Amino acid sequence: MREAYRVELDELAVELAGMCSMVATAMESATRALLDADLGLAEQVIGDDVKVDDARSACEEHAYALLALQAPVATDLRTVLAAIHAAESLERMGDLALHVAKAARRRHPQPVLPEQVAPLFREMGRVAVELARKAEQVILTKDVDQAHALEDADDEIDDLHRHLFTVIMDKDWSNGVAAAVDVTLLGRFYERFADHAVSVAKRVVFVVTGRMPGASHDEVV
Amino acid sequence: MREAYRVELDELAVELAGMCSMVATAMESATRALLDADLGLAEQVIGDDVKVDDARSACEEHAYALLALQAPVATDLRTVLAAIHAAESLERMGDLALHVAKAARRRHPQPVLPEQVAPLFREMGRVAVELARKAEQVILTKDVDQAHALEDADDEIDDLHRHLFTVIMDKDWSNGVAAAVDVTLLGRFYERFADHAVSVAKRVVFVVTGRMPGASHDEVV
Repeated sequence: MREAYRVELDELAVELAGMCSMVATAMESATRALLDADLGLAEQVIGDDVKVDDARSACEEHAYALLALQAPVATDLRTVLAAIHAAESLERMGDLALHVAKAARRRHPQPVLPEQVAPLFREMGRVAVELARKAEQVILTKDVDQAHALEDADDEIDDLHRHLFTVIMDKDWSNGVAAAVDVTLLGRFYERFADHAVSVAKRVVFVVTGRMPGASHDEVV
Repeated sequence: MREAYRVELDELAVELAGMCSMVATAMESATRALLDADLGLAEQVIGDDVKVDDARSACEEHAYALLALQAPVATDLRTVLAAIHAAESLERMGDLALHVAKAARRRHPQPVLPEQVAPLFREMGRVAVELARKAEQVILTKDVDQAHALEDADDEIDDLHRHLFTVIMDKDWSNGVAAAVDVTLLGRFYERFADHAVSVAKRVVFVVTGRMPGASHDEVV
C-alpha cells in the first residue's frame, strides 16, 4: 500500500513535470512569435493553451483522488498539496505565455516590439524558458540546490525587467505611448512567469526540507 | 466528531472571510493613497501587508491540520482544498493592493495619476473593494447566486480597464510615456485583484454545486 502510494506520488510529479515542459515550450514559441511577428506560431500557442488547462485539471483530480483514497499525513500530505499549488502556478504560466502570443497576434503584421527592446525580450524569453525547464528538473529530482539556483535566474529576469523600464522611461524613447503600454505589459508577463516558476521550485523545497524559502518578491519598478 | 469537523470548517470560513475584509480595506486605502497622494496611508497599507501573509499561513496550516487529522472525503475535502486556493488568491489580492500603495509612495509627493484618469481609478477601486466584500459574503453564506453576481462586477472592472486603454492610447494623451507606464500597470493590478475575487467566489460555487463555473477570462486589451 505504502509502495503503491509512492508510485502514485511519482506519477503526479511526472504529470507536473509534463506541465513544466508544456509551458516552457509555450513561452519559447510565444517569444519567437513576438520577435518574428509569426502569426502561425502565435495561433499555435493560443490553440494549445487548453492542453495546459486540461493537464492542470488532471493533476488536480489526481491529487484529490490521492487525498480522498489514501488520506496521507505529514510529508506525503505536504507533497500532494504542493502538487496542487504547483499545478495552479503552471496553469498561470501557460496563461502568461498565451498573453504574449495574443499580443503578437493582435498587432500582426506589425511587430509589437520596437527594435530597441527586442534583444531584451529575446533575453527575458530565454531565461523564462530556462526557469520553466529548471522547475521541471527540480520536480523530478527534488534537488534543493537546483531549486535555489532558480532564484538566480529569477534575479536575471528582474534585472532585465528593471532595465526595460529605464529604456521605456528614457527621453530617447521615440516609439510612442502605445508601444510603451504594450512593452510594459509584456515585460510584466515575463516577470510573473518567472515568479511562478520560482514558486513551483520553492514548494518542492518545502516538501523536501519542511521549510518554505523566503517569500517571492514580486517587486514592481 | 462529525459536528466538531463542521465547526472547524466554519472557523476556516471565518478566517477566509477575515482575509477578504483585510484585502478589501487594503485596496480601499491604497486607492485613496493613490488618488490623494497620501503617503501615510500608503505606508500603512505597505506595513499591513504582512498581516495578510500571516493570515494566509494560518489558514493554510489550519487546512493542513484538518486534512491530516480528519482525512475528509467528498464535499468536505473539496471545501478544505477550496479554502487553500482561496487563501492563496486572497494573499495575492493583498500583494496587488500593496503594489498600488507602493506606486503611490514611489511618486510622492507627485500624484501618480494624471487628472484625466483619476475618476476611472476611483471607480475601479470602488468596484474592486466591492468585489472583495462580496467574496467575503459568499464565503460566509455560500450563496451561489451571490457568487454569480460577482462576475457582473468583474465585467464592470473589465470595461473600465478597457476604457482606460483607449484613454492612454488616444492621441490626446498628453501625460507622456512614464505616466502611461504607471497607469498601465496600475490598471492591471485592479483587474487582477478583481479576477482573484471572482476566483474565490467560483471555488465556493464549486464546493456548493460540485461544478466549476466557466474559466476566468483574464483578457488583456
